[in-house]
Amino acid sequence: MGFDLKTYLERQRVRIEEALDRLLPTGEGENTSRVVQAMRYSLMAGGKRLRPILCIASCEAIGGDSELALPIGCAIEMIHTYSLIHDDLPAMDNDALRRGIPTCHVAFDEATAILAGDALLTHAFAVLAGSVTTDVDVFPPPSPSLCLQAIAIVSEAAGFPGMIEGQMQDMLQEGQPTTLEALERMHRLKTGAMIEASVACGVLIGGGSRADMDRFRHYARHIGLAFQIQDDILNVEGDPKIMGKAAGTDRLHRKTTYPSLIGVDAARVLAVAHRDEALTALSPYDVKADPLRALADYIVHRNR
Amino acid sequence: MGFDLKTYLERQRVRIEEALDRLLPTGEGENTSRVVQAMRYSLMAGGKRLRPILCIASCEAIGGDSELALPIGCAIEMIHTYSLIHDDLPAMDNDALRRGIPTCHVAFDEATAILAGDALLTHAFAVLAGSVTTDVDVFPPPSPSLCLQAIAIVSEAAGFPGMIEGQMQDMLQEGQPTTLEALERMHRLKTGAMIEASVACGVLIGGGSRADMDRFRHYARHIGLAFQIQDDILNVEGDPKIMGKAAGTDRLHRKTTYPSLIGVDAARVLAVAHRDEALTALSPYDVKADPLRALADYIVHRNR
Repeated sequence: MGFDLKTYLERQRVRIEEALDRLLPTGEGENTSRVVQAMRYSLMAGGKRLRPILCIASCEAIGGDSELALPIGCAIEMIHTYSLIHDDLPAMDNDALRRGIPTCHVAFDEATAILAGDALLTHAFAVLAGSVTTDVDVFPPPSPSLCLQAIAIVSEAAGFPGMIEGQMQDMLQEGQPTTLEALERMHRLKTGAMIEASVACGVLIGGGSRADMDRFRHYARHIGLAFQIQDDILNVEGDPKIMGKAAGTDRLHRKTTYPSLIGVDAARVLAVAHRDEALTALSPYDVKADPLRALADYIVHRNR
Repeated sequence: MGFDLKTYLERQRVRIEEALDRLLPTGEGENTSRVVQAMRYSLMAGGKRLRPILCIASCEAIGGDSELALPIGCAIEMIHTYSLIHDDLPAMDNDALRRGIPTCHVAFDEATAILAGDALLTHAFAVLAGSVTTDVDVFPPPSPSLCLQAIAIVSEAAGFPGMIEGQMQDMLQEGQPTTLEALERMHRLKTGAMIEASVACGVLIGGGSRADMDRFRHYARHIGLAFQIQDDILNVEGDPKIMGKAAGTDRLHRKTTYPSLIGVDAARVLAVAHRDEALTALSPYDVKADPLRALADYIVHRNR
């Protein structure tokens, strides 16, 4: 009885990684391209695939066909991966390890990493426009109008009004005292905007109403904050072996985090409060929203 | 009598810069954003605006309404500017001067320059999707289907199948002996792909036929190569004061160029041959194609 999240996540993860694999050229054979190899290296390096799973699960929650949400979720994952590649660069966070393997600029070089990030971002829009599809795409693509709306949602969330402004604020705030309010504003932009876009695209492609969109965006905003708070907690308390990256780095870089501002215990309480707020937003929906409910819970209890 | 290119270029430049100005937030006032300031700094730093002019002139040449081509041309200019910002980075070409002023990472810092480039690329797709418009857009936007086709053209030209692969090849070839064939292949990708996309989008939005598209793409490929050859010649012989950037840098970086492979005189002959080939492609068209003809000529005689 009940919903088995672990099985669901694993099934979706395999499905998403197969689709990602088909949406990129192999980068091997006669047309070996260093930049395609670097794109593949970072995109196929694992990860939770949280954003595409949210896109798919949101589409399913309102009774939509998740096959239509799959390429959009993959495009969002490409944008997420590009943002990690660029954030890891020496001029930004200067991280050498990500998901248990060397970051892109360490495995290749800085120039290749910059270009691989640029290429993933550009390719994501080709996928959103429907001009790149997987061999097994047997479903009719969404209407041009829906594709354009998805591009509008994603470009706003990923651009200077969203994720990029969040990263800029993160860079500017580093090592400086700040407030809980400023920290939340930064996270709403840096990670929240793309999490919200994942959910919004799922609702869009599933044919949701304006009211659905409002409720699901509300859900997404709160799991986004819960996710970030848990990320900060894991950076203090997590096991580097499980996380695939170093712990304690926030403190080392004198980053302002939820634990540094309010302590680990209060941060944990806050994460749970955001999860509860997210669950309340989903109360009008039936069992088809169970994956989203389970995801909200998983986000505050995950160990990586 | 005859077509006055200087007046035409100046009128279009003003029109394009007004549109670019309206397509970006001011970056001032209460919502001052460092990343928006950096986007503006590089986007509004002048330049020939060759790509949007080609987009507009191609649309007009087949009798289309150039108001429809204007935002697409502006989006392409944003992508061109992002590529310059990233190419100038220390990890890439490490240039300190561009268009007579400090490059973005010198005027701001590396992290901001990376983010400003990312943001311009992302914003270009928002503009192409029609989700960002200028206040004075009084014309109906192109159909969703045409918008998606433009996004497909631009994302392919700007991504790993085009411009990015060209920059990667440029980085890998630097300081190494190469052939005229390899040099041309690199330039076809690095600068040619986006010049061709500018023209193709103009034809698309102007309602051109398949035959129009083939002829105009042929024109674009040859002016693209002529443009690059002239760029190489100017790097040897140009006046830094007029160009707004240093001369002789290719030789300093031991870059393979047309002059280094075949000498300046033969390079000049080759540029003119490409111009002639471009003009031949336009022979079926009437006086409305005169701006494109004049541009082909300008490209091989410009001094900056």
